[in-house]
Amino acid sequence: MLPPKELLPKCVNQQIKVLTTNQTYYTGKLISYDEYMNLVLSGDVEERKLTSNGELLSKIGGDNNRVLICGANVAMIVPGV
Amino acid sequence: MLPPKELLPKCVNQQIKVLTTNQTYYTGKLISYDEYMNLVLSGDVEERKLTSNGELLSKIGGDNNRVLICGANVAMIVPGV
Amino acid sequence: MLPPKELLPKCVNQQIKVLTTNQTYYTGKLISYDEYMNLVLSGDVEERKLTSNGELLSKIGGDNNRVLICGANVAMIVPGV
Amino acid sequence: MLPPKELLPKCVNQQIKVLTTNQTYYTGKLISYDEYMNLVLSGDVEERKLTSNGELLSKIGGDNNRVLICGANVAMIVPGV
Amino acid sequence: MLPPKELLPKCVNQQIKVLTTNQTYYTGKLISYDEYMNLVLSGDVEERKLTSNGELLSKIGGDNNRVLICGANVAMIVPGV
Amino acid sequence: MLPPKELLPKCVNQQIKVLTTNQTYYTGKLISYDEYMNLVLSGDVEERKLTSNGELLSKIGGDNNRVLICGANVAMIVPGV
Amino acid sequence: MLPPKELLPKCVNQQIKVLTTNQTYYTGKLISYDEYMNLVLSGDVEERKLTSNGELLSKIGGDNNRVLICGANVAMIVPGV
Repeated sequence: MLPPKELLPKCVNQQIKVLTTNQTYYTGKLISYDEYMNLVLSGDVEERKLTSNGELLSKIGGDNNRVLICGANVAMIVPGV
Repeated sequence: MLPPKELLPKCVNQQIKVLTTNQTYYTGKLISYDEYMNLVLSGDVEERKLTSNGELLSKIGGDNNRVLICGANVAMIVPGV
Repeated sequence: MLPPKELLPKCVNQQIKVLTTNQTYYTGKLISYDEYMNLVLSGDVEERKLTSNGELLSKIGGDNNRVLICGANVAMIVPGV
Repeated sequence: MLPPKELLPKCVNQQIKVLTTNQTYYTGKLISYDEYMNLVLSGDVEERKLTSNGELLSKIGGDNNRVLICGANVAMIVPGV
Repeated sequence: MLPPKELLPKCVNQQIKVLTTNQTYYTGKLISYDEYMNLVLSGDVEERKLTSNGELLSKIGGDNNRVLICGANVAMIVPGV
Repeated sequence: MLPPKELLPKCVNQQIKVLTTNQTYYTGKLISYDEYMNLVLSGDVEERKLTSNGELLSKIGGDNNRVLICGANVAMIVPGV
Repeated sequence: MLPPKELLPKCVNQQIKVLTTNQTYYTGKLISYDEYMNLVLSGDVEERKLTSNGELLSKIGGDNNRVLICGANVAMIVPGV
């Protein structure tokens, strides 16, 4: 049985999809995480609404392509998308 | 009297339905859980709105078919669906 | 004066109605509970919206008819309905 | 100066009106309470929306007429209504 | 510099306006308060929506004209209105 | 690097704009604050909606022109407006 | 692996974009931060809605161009925009 907290180490350097508590999806490569589930994604991070057509809101990777998602805001993580 | 926290061990490797606090249902096989009610589902995890027609939003199991739902986001669990 | 926390033991094996913080009613037989107000209901658990017509959303008891409602999500309990 | 927490003992066996954090009013007789502001009401407990016309949603006292309102869900208490 | 928590003692027996986290205004005389910002108002307590026309929802002072507003629900206090 | 908590002392007796978690702006002179970010504003405190036209909801400074905003409700502070 | 909390020191004096829990974007230069993720931005801080067209709500840098965003309100940080 792979305990939930052992799933994250296996996702480092993988594309993941993160659903936040305000119902928005972020897709990008997982660079790092910590015990509070703060996540750093990189690459062309996409920001999409949680609706059936998954409307693209914006591409938000800045010039050094890092995005820090605060752990309290993380509702769900889908590795390998 | 089966205390609530003893229900989860009986659901491992079973299909379950999880309702999240932002009123979305996730259906998949329970792979693991922890004391914070973080859950790992696998298989073709379905994401449906909590409405009478249960509109399908998307199938979200990535290529290695794992989905990590954060415990703070879990409102209800229905085993054996 | 029956303190609130002594009401739950009297509801075991009784039909109860649970209102959750996202304004949805669940009706079923109370199987067990714990000190965090996690509740296990059984039987054909009904899921209804908190509106004057109480629109039925779905019947959610899985094949082994258990539903685990997380305590943080419980707003109100009506025994004996 | 009657400190807030000394108001509740004076309301036992009185009709009170309780406003919950999801903007719904419950009116009934206060049977008991605890230090977490969990409240047990009894009688034909009425459930009304917080709107100017106070739309009646339902009468929710079950057959043994008890309603347990969870303290975290209590926003306001109006004694003697 | 009058620290915030020293403002409340000066408001006892004064009319105050309280804005709650669910965006509703309550106006009445402050009878008492405690360290959790639980407040007891008295008199014809008015309940108004936070909109430009401040729609009156209801007068909620019961027969002994007390209203207990739970501290966790208090967003703002305006003394002397 | 002026740490965030050292910004507030510099704002005392200055006009500031406070955005609350329920998306409303309050503008007034900062009289005092405490470690929980409870704030006391004074003067003709304006209450405006967080919209592009910043609709004025009301002027809320009571007769002694004090407004106590609870720290848990403070989302953002803009000094010197 | 650059742990999330080591990302912030690298953003000081850089333009960053901050998404708050009430779905509003703030763009400005990061002046300082603390362990609670309280952030001070400076310059012409822009306030935009989280929608596909990113509607500009207002420019909110006051005369001394400082904006303090409370850590509990921070959902996501995008360095280098």
